[in-house]
Amino acid sequence: MAMLSPITELFEIDYPVISGGMVWCSGWELAAAVSNAGGLGLIGAGSMTPDVLREHIIKCRKATPYNFGVNVPLMRPEAAEMMEVIAEQKVPVVFTSAGSPRKWTNWLHERKIKVAHVVSSSAFAIKCEEAGVDAIVAEGFEAGGHNGKEETTTLCLIPAVRRVTRLPLIAAGGIVTGSGMLAMESLGADGVQLGTLFAVTQESSAHENFKRLCLNLNEGDTLLHFRKLSPTRLVKNGFQATVQEAENRGATEDELLDIIGIGKTRTGIYEGDIDNGEIEIGQAASLLKGHEIEPVNVVMQRFVREYYAARRQLINQAMDEQMSRRTY
Amino acid sequence: MAMLSPITELFEIDYPVISGGMVWCSGWELAAAVSNAGGLGLIGAGSMTPDVLREHIIKCRKATPYNFGVNVPLMRPEAAEMMEVIAEQKVPVVFTSAGSPRKWTNWLHERKIKVAHVVSSSAFAIKCEEAGVDAIVAEGFEAGGHNGKEETTTLCLIPAVRRVTRLPLIAAGGIVTGSGMLAMESLGADGVQLGTLFAVTQESSAHENFKRLCLNLNEGDTLLHFRKLSPTRLVKNGFQATVQEAENRGATEDELLDIIGIGKTRTGIYEGDIDNGEIEIGQAASLLKGHEIEPVNVVMQRFVREYYAARRQLINQAMDEQMSRRTY
Repeated sequence: MAMLSPITELFEIDYPVISGGMVWCSGWELAAAVSNAGGLGLIGAGSMTPDVLREHIIKCRKATPYNFGVNVPLMRPEAAEMMEVIAEQKVPVVFTSAGSPRKWTNWLHERKIKVAHVVSSSAFAIKCEEAGVDAIVAEGFEAGGHNGKEETTTLCLIPAVRRVTRLPLIAAGGIVTGSGMLAMESLGADGVQLGTLFAVTQESSAHENFKRLCLNLNEGDTLLHFRKLSPTRLVKNGFQATVQEAENRGATEDELLDIIGIGKTRTGIYEGDIDNGEIEIGQAASLLKGHEIEPVNVVMQRFVREYYAARRQLINQAMDEQMSRRTY
Repeated sequence: MAMLSPITELFEIDYPVISGGMVWCSGWELAAAVSNAGGLGLIGAGSMTPDVLREHIIKCRKATPYNFGVNVPLMRPEAAEMMEVIAEQKVPVVFTSAGSPRKWTNWLHERKIKVAHVVSSSAFAIKCEEAGVDAIVAEGFEAGGHNGKEETTTLCLIPAVRRVTRLPLIAAGGIVTGSGMLAMESLGADGVQLGTLFAVTQESSAHENFKRLCLNLNEGDTLLHFRKLSPTRLVKNGFQATVQEAENRGATEDELLDIIGIGKTRTGIYEGDIDNGEIEIGQAASLLKGHEIEPVNVVMQRFVREYYAARRQLINQAMDEQMSRRTY
């Protein structure tokens, strides 16, 4: 049973649910599983070389008959090569982020590829509309990993973006339940992009240690750091404690860059060194505490059921209110 | 037309909408106006002496025949004297914050006063339930002024609190529109507490300069500071720039206390020195950009209309989906 939404129509999917592109999590297995479960799976190119990306696209196509996409962070030096791979492989959808939506939208449209761009403010949403993208992802402060400088939360961001554009709008950051999707719809969004919820599934390519850690977090166990560089939401661990200590004493940008070093997200998320590595996950992970590492289709079906249950409850409340008024 | 909610029943009000206790904003005029408009107005004792509080309670009772309450921040040294004033004046409702819900709940209940307590985490919500409060306010990172250390946003906080308690739940932080209230209902809240929206009304006792400033903010114009002391959301201005500079260079707690000094919120919010004073408002203020300073009843009626419009739209979408399924 498909849901009606500009997002399901645009991407020809059953549910307006997209899996975010996450370093070391969203390879072909996760993307294909999400598309097979009725959403739109994205391959996250952020932790791939162009050749590795090609391999993932080819494997993803073999693993699902449905649409899928690639998320390309535009600050990556190999972004242009990645776009060539995407065009060569006729990927139907690209989500661009961390850069200007003007840069690739026309080029991708000329190749019949649909484009969504990720923003953290209404000002950037206006630029997206000017650039002619097909959809906008608005991602709030709750999101894991890289984050906007203005720290606007999803609750404040979605209405702000909705006011400046009628484009299909995808809410991201802080959503891990079907009632979260209903809340986003209430604010005017047409669909959701989920990172955290899919990062901890069986098909995520992250290390099992990472998944177990992320399924055992309490409120307050992620915090935003690197405000002087590029704000990033980290899980509290040994690496984060070093960052926190440095920031508390007013460390310079260079000192912080030294701490980041090279490959710390790989160490943490892919290799599973959950104390020394950089661990990125959304604030809403704590809402998943105690969950098992499950297959994507189980997670998606529960999410959809939760959505319908929350919507039914809201409608029932509204009807009760109507009824009680009539009997007065 | 009253709304059905455990909150409207508990406080005997028409709409499950409470005006938060805000220093230098929520005097008797604002509280009475909110209660007269169908919500529950709170007198904010945070910027009052016990004698001033008594005066406000007496004036509020003359100005409205409906229930109203007082918000008492428990870290105030005069909290005990304030409670005596509240009991003497037979105020029907008290909202406690910034302290333990155990401290006053029984004492207030013995005097037939209803009690709600403000929390920023599900752990504190459990303590509220143990203390026997009548309702819980869960306030997220978006809120103006004092804020939780864990930085949990309203979108992540409400579902977390809803899971640990069935008590009437009031969502706060980031809500300035009726669709925001609908989103909170989707997440399981029974009502909302609004600070920002009422701080900028005609009846708010804040200075006009403060109101005009707050009605002209962009996204990103408030930021959380004083993480080393007590996290506080501030509007960007001269005072905030001094704080920001000090925090960037790793200032100690003592240095930060020196910058805070005494009476900086009075200077900013009440006296209207919007560059040198401390200005506190919620992140969602940017959603009010361009609004006029309006009377509370106008603001409340619009809020309620927005809520019904958003709910109708959601229900219509659900019905369209049902219909389209039948015709397949």
